[in-house]
Amino acid sequence: MERGLVKTLAELDDAELAGLDAWWRAANYLTIGQIYLRGNPLLREPLRPEHIKPRLLGHWGTSPGLSLIYAHVSRLIRHTGQEAIYLAGPGHGGPALVAAGYLEGTYSEIYPRVSQDEAGMLQLFRQFSSPGGIPSHVSVTTPGSIHEGGELGYVLVHAFGAVLDNPDLLAVAVIGDGEAETGPLEGSWKGISFLNPARDGAVLPILHLNGAKIAGPTVLSRKPAEEVNGLLRGHGYEVIEVSGDDLPGMHVRFAAALARAWGRIREIQDAARNGRWDGTRPLWPLIVLRSPKGWTGPDEVDGVRVTGTWRSHQVPLSGVRDNADHLALLERWLRSYRPEELFDDAGAPVEVIRQQAPDGALRMSASPHANGGILTRDLDLPDFRTYAIEVKEPGTERAESTRKLGELMRDIYARNPRTFRLFCPDETNSNRLGAVFEVSDRAFMERVNDDDVAIGRDGRVMEVLSEHNCHGWLEGYNLTGRHGMFATYEAFAMVSASQTVQHGKWLQEAKPLPWRLPVPSLNVLLTSTAWRNDHNGFSHQGPGLLQVVLNQRGDVARLYLPPDANTLLSVADHCFRSRSYINLIVIDKQPQLQYLSIDEAVAHCTRGAGVWEWAGTDDGTSDPDIVLACAGDVVTMETVAAAQILRERLPGFKVRLVNVVDLMTLIRPKDHPHGMSETLFTELFTDTVDVVFAFHGYPGAIHQLVHGRPDADRFRVRGFVEQGTTTTPFDMTVRNRTSRYHLVMDALNNARRLPRGAAELMAWCESQLQKHEGYVVEHLEDMPEVRDWVVPR
Amino acid sequence: MERGLVKTLAELDDAELAGLDAWWRAANYLTIGQIYLRGNPLLREPLRPEHIKPRLLGHWGTSPGLSLIYAHVSRLIRHTGQEAIYLAGPGHGGPALVAAGYLEGTYSEIYPRVSQDEAGMLQLFRQFSSPGGIPSHVSVTTPGSIHEGGELGYVLVHAFGAVLDNPDLLAVAVIGDGEAETGPLEGSWKGISFLNPARDGAVLPILHLNGAKIAGPTVLSRKPAEEVNGLLRGHGYEVIEVSGDDLPGMHVRFAAALARAWGRIREIQDAARNGRWDGTRPLWPLIVLRSPKGWTGPDEVDGVRVTGTWRSHQVPLSGVRDNADHLALLERWLRSYRPEELFDDAGAPVEVIRQQAPDGALRMSASPHANGGILTRDLDLPDFRTYAIEVKEPGTERAESTRKLGELMRDIYARNPRTFRLFCPDETNSNRLGAVFEVSDRAFMERVNDDDVAIGRDGRVMEVLSEHNCHGWLEGYNLTGRHGMFATYEAFAMVSASQTVQHGKWLQEAKPLPWRLPVPSLNVLLTSTAWRNDHNGFSHQGPGLLQVVLNQRGDVARLYLPPDANTLLSVADHCFRSRSYINLIVIDKQPQLQYLSIDEAVAHCTRGAGVWEWAGTDDGTSDPDIVLACAGDVVTMETVAAAQILRERLPGFKVRLVNVVDLMTLIRPKDHPHGMSETLFTELFTDTVDVVFAFHGYPGAIHQLVHGRPDADRFRVRGFVEQGTTTTPFDMTVRNRTSRYHLVMDALNNARRLPRGAAELMAWCESQLQKHEGYVVEHLEDMPEVRDWVVPR
Repeated sequence: MERGLVKTLAELDDAELAGLDAWWRAANYLTIGQIYLRGNPLLREPLRPEHIKPRLLGHWGTSPGLSLIYAHVSRLIRHTGQEAIYLAGPGHGGPALVAAGYLEGTYSEIYPRVSQDEAGMLQLFRQFSSPGGIPSHVSVTTPGSIHEGGELGYVLVHAFGAVLDNPDLLAVAVIGDGEAETGPLEGSWKGISFLNPARDGAVLPILHLNGAKIAGPTVLSRKPAEEVNGLLRGHGYEVIEVSGDDLPGMHVRFAAALARAWGRIREIQDAARNGRWDGTRPLWPLIVLRSPKGWTGPDEVDGVRVTGTWRSHQVPLSGVRDNADHLALLERWLRSYRPEELFDDAGAPVEVIRQQAPDGALRMSASPHANGGILTRDLDLPDFRTYAIEVKEPGTERAESTRKLGELMRDIYARNPRTFRLFCPDETNSNRLGAVFEVSDRAFMERVNDDDVAIGRDGRVMEVLSEHNCHGWLEGYNLTGRHGMFATYEAFAMVSASQTVQHGKWLQEAKPLPWRLPVPSLNVLLTSTAWRNDHNGFSHQGPGLLQVVLNQRGDVARLYLPPDANTLLSVADHCFRSRSYINLIVIDKQPQLQYLSIDEAVAHCTRGAGVWEWAGTDDGTSDPDIVLACAGDVVTMETVAAAQILRERLPGFKVRLVNVVDLMTLIRPKDHPHGMSETLFTELFTDTVDVVFAFHGYPGAIHQLVHGRPDADRFRVRGFVEQGTTTTPFDMTVRNRTSRYHLVMDALNNARRLPRGAAELMAWCESQLQKHEGYVVEHLEDMPEVRDWVVPR
Repeated sequence: MERGLVKTLAELDDAELAGLDAWWRAANYLTIGQIYLRGNPLLREPLRPEHIKPRLLGHWGTSPGLSLIYAHVSRLIRHTGQEAIYLAGPGHGGPALVAAGYLEGTYSEIYPRVSQDEAGMLQLFRQFSSPGGIPSHVSVTTPGSIHEGGELGYVLVHAFGAVLDNPDLLAVAVIGDGEAETGPLEGSWKGISFLNPARDGAVLPILHLNGAKIAGPTVLSRKPAEEVNGLLRGHGYEVIEVSGDDLPGMHVRFAAALARAWGRIREIQDAARNGRWDGTRPLWPLIVLRSPKGWTGPDEVDGVRVTGTWRSHQVPLSGVRDNADHLALLERWLRSYRPEELFDDAGAPVEVIRQQAPDGALRMSASPHANGGILTRDLDLPDFRTYAIEVKEPGTERAESTRKLGELMRDIYARNPRTFRLFCPDETNSNRLGAVFEVSDRAFMERVNDDDVAIGRDGRVMEVLSEHNCHGWLEGYNLTGRHGMFATYEAFAMVSASQTVQHGKWLQEAKPLPWRLPVPSLNVLLTSTAWRNDHNGFSHQGPGLLQVVLNQRGDVARLYLPPDANTLLSVADHCFRSRSYINLIVIDKQPQLQYLSIDEAVAHCTRGAGVWEWAGTDDGTSDPDIVLACAGDVVTMETVAAAQILRERLPGFKVRLVNVVDLMTLIRPKDHPHGMSETLFTELFTDTVDVVFAFHGYPGAIHQLVHGRPDADRFRVRGFVEQGTTTTPFDMTVRNRTSRYHLVMDALNNARRLPRGAAELMAWCESQLQKHEGYVVEHLEDMPEVRDWVVPR
């Protein structure tokens, strides 16, 4: 049956050709209109300077190619009913995608002001690249998009993420030859090594080589074609080439290419889904489209070639208001699309153009997959309390906290076989999350050997040694309505920090758009933290991502620093239920002290911060002499130890210990929804007593968070100050002046009153630190004897 | 002549084979010793549990391959006198590289404690992966390295950067198959599209496919070999394969492969340097080495295969202290290298091993190119004052400030034809730095067409649409002693933020090492800032890199926010002269107001911050009513405008305006060498008057910087609070509450005294903001009329 369909698709009859071409001309016309026009949108009168925008902004060069592809994929959808989404890698072709949504009617459905008539068209033109309007790149406001234009490199990772566990979905991913130069893009071709044709949907990459980027030629467009094809075949693709600028020839050839690609995809899927797959990774089809940059635009301007060169990247004709020749050229150019055939008297697209749009939600601009909140369902979550560690007495027993999270995720995997995935750069076991392998292998479509472990075709744990792939796949998975977690080493989370920033911006921009429904949060787990890296060195010690997320807007940024297993479980459960946040969870993977029972943990996490009475000597009846606060596991251990030293050695000295799990509770409520009330803040931190705060990240973050709180200057913050090397966690706290001894000295130095014995205790602390220094130097090789919290007594 | 050399190289005689193999066995022995031994380093007695380190850490798997390659490249150097450096992409093979430096004598020269005798060997073993010792990965402490192990992906970019303008240098870059999965690595093969064989040196990539990463197989090792080879040929390389685990066969075949590769490189260079190059990009050779992971290690442990699998990634034999079988296995393994043949009675390498090392500085562990400070020469800099803009009256005329920097760099290019380069993701013209094209084209080795502009074989401006490549190339260029600048869009600087972090850490770690001499600073210019993006949207608005660098240690981090052209010139001159810093310069590229004459600019930049008397109404005789401070161009314009409004409308109100160019002057001197004294700080900011601070980046940064300064709570900071869209710079300041009107209201709200007329002025400010709001909404399409600082009057 499908063979017949493919044949039909491959052959354009004259009527179809006319319809396709009309749609394409309309899209191009609207693209140019967006860049140039502020009046006379339908060219009902001769073009005059006052019809031209005073400032010309936008990107023409990539747009005609994007629209051509869009037109043809729409035809494919109409013929086949294939569900498809469109990801425009050359994101500055925004006007093309906006034009497509407008021609399909979706734009007016979402933004009624931009109606399908002359007034709406004028609105469409005026809003583009204008203050308070829409950007020149594809953005959150563009219907049908899950892929922001601008920061290049992620179109394939988003596409692959979107089709995982989405067997009926086709993601058409257009890659510009500029984007193709980026590292993240080049690293993302390998998505097919993880894509199961039976269970997942398909990505159709279309490498659009139009030859130039902003100001010069691209590498791929200037390499010999056989090298480019060899490269893509080496990545595992079957290359289908379409090249030229002749019309209708390009329509005919592109239709045939697309038919062949879709037919091949369906063959691969059909075989895999009907027991006819030998398990070899398929050669997935890919189209290389070579068409001139700025195709159908003015060939020459002022005697210089424009179309086919970088000069058509943005605005091929400048100074149109003041230059009569350019104005005439623009008019001729616009009229070359014969707008009078494309729009009716009211200004609406004519019937033949309307007919090009697939039905309803099959329109790519209206696909629910590109507005994943529509498809988002709650996870079936087990009761996280059942994974709890029993804690008889706080701070006495150790456990690997993340192991419990692994068990929780194992059962989430089992209960949600199509809507939950873990993404990790080859560190799932290292991060103690290996329990997931009890129910799912790693996904892998390349050769698997007999003695491989927990890896195979049916695996759904995503491990690839690329933070960019992991992060981007999860984004695509989230934005199409499914849940997951990205787990990585803390220092190397900076590799994908720009993706975290950009995804956070996407979520922020989506919030005020009523038509974009909330999607599952992006959950990021950071382990192997700055404080504990064993045999690794300074390059592995960097809590930078905390600060990056902290600077995101309060409506998306969430930072959690659970100090032990039960708080981690409670935090994770909360994150898995949440929507449209960036949830950053930081916790070490090594055995660590356990403090709270599961009930205490839930109560603690619910408040986000609280007094640990058992750790202090504060009776609550009056202000303590000092508040010791902490956020983060290793520094919490040091703070608890400091409180213990003070308790044991200066019994009359009143110490209150406050632990913070949810960092955002420290912010004023007017600046963050999690911000605790002034009353609660004062209950915890008083409003006059000095606070010695031991923090996992850079100390400035706490100053930033408590800014505007009562007498914020009384917060003395210790944290990571970029002192590191290959050493023990305890030595790390010494180097960064955050050890128990430093905290005790800080407490005494800042206390409301100095009790008897304070001077002796300070001297003792100093001597302990000196002993430690000698100890580290003398016992270089003896890791266990100086490791962790074990220090000379 | 060289043909004969190649033939000699390709054929190993028995003596050479014996020497090579002895060296390799010694390196492997020392590698295992570092992982396992704390005593009995030469196995002079039977191995006992107490000889074993209590905690076993390190990475064996990749090490034997790294050492094999090292041995063979050393032989190549001995035969040919080729200058070479070695970059170990699989950076956790640290013990192999440390062993190599030790065998070559360099290690003991640098670290006399680690002498070439039994005591020194014990020191070598004990320091490894131990607190206070060295990390398990290649690090700054490793002689001969310019490439930190850990964060994967940059080995090729560092290698290409190192050989630019270094015609006699060969950079041997070993790429692990784990690293080969990362985006940055995949994006870096294209270095050869920018490498000129006549003028630049050569990179020899050796893709070391040993099959596994931490916990599973790698993509490339499991793809069909023809796909891998096709991929690499598609990247433009000639693939030379060596595969197996047989000995001495592997030595013989690798020697032949290396000879062929080197011969090919010399042919290419020779042709290009002697007028026999047609300009076609050469097919550079590349070696694919397939050898088992953990090669020569124990095949099986406890009945499970180890060598050749991921199980040999780190420590193939665990629990050796407590497991007699494992202890015996370890002893057998160590003795299989016949240490008694490798080290003499004193414990020093025997003569045949010493003979393997090239002479002096030709040893790769002693190459001056890997300690680029040795080769660093001052740039020949023109007098930056000659590029100055004439400023008759401050704040009245506009100019594109970065254009002046472009002119300065043009002349730096001309004066320093081999030691200065600009690296930019295709934005040199967009960033108004295009003057450099008057003296140098863009570098490009792919096809160049007749109508291309400023691009060609001889070009030395590096443009590639990849922040990772640009940043990494510059790092390699810097670390080998040459100067440059990386210019990019502010928001997308986050793409390479992890590289900025890692390079900063490298510089930090190098400072205390007396043998590592200072290298040129990494200069980063950020334009197209958060505040001014015209047709771009929220995704293009992010001042994140400022915060990232701010959190680096004071001995490397430098942040400059010049407000105009002359301050930019002064700052740039300073940066080009500096050593071993990360210099971040942030300035917009669009026409902007000019404030200071060149002399004023020099004085201002020298202090780093200062009062602009002409802007305020402060007579200096007593404290002002308010201090308005600013850092960053757009916010400086708003602050100057706010001061003007106050001056004109409330003449009796005393305003002081402080502009900060060098952000680090705000920090206390004990925390940063640029930190201004308390006296100067108080002179500028008083110690009691409130300060309204308008900042280019996130406001928290200023709170962080002034922490600990007198009454730091009095700083009211406005800055970028993640409010953005496609709009004008003025509207951006309104959205982020940093506009002139907000600043006036802030000033009045926080002033020491409220003058008569304050209430009216506040009301007027509010009405102006309301007008602006209506204005933006009504005039969507009219960019120039609402652009910049033009606001309704």
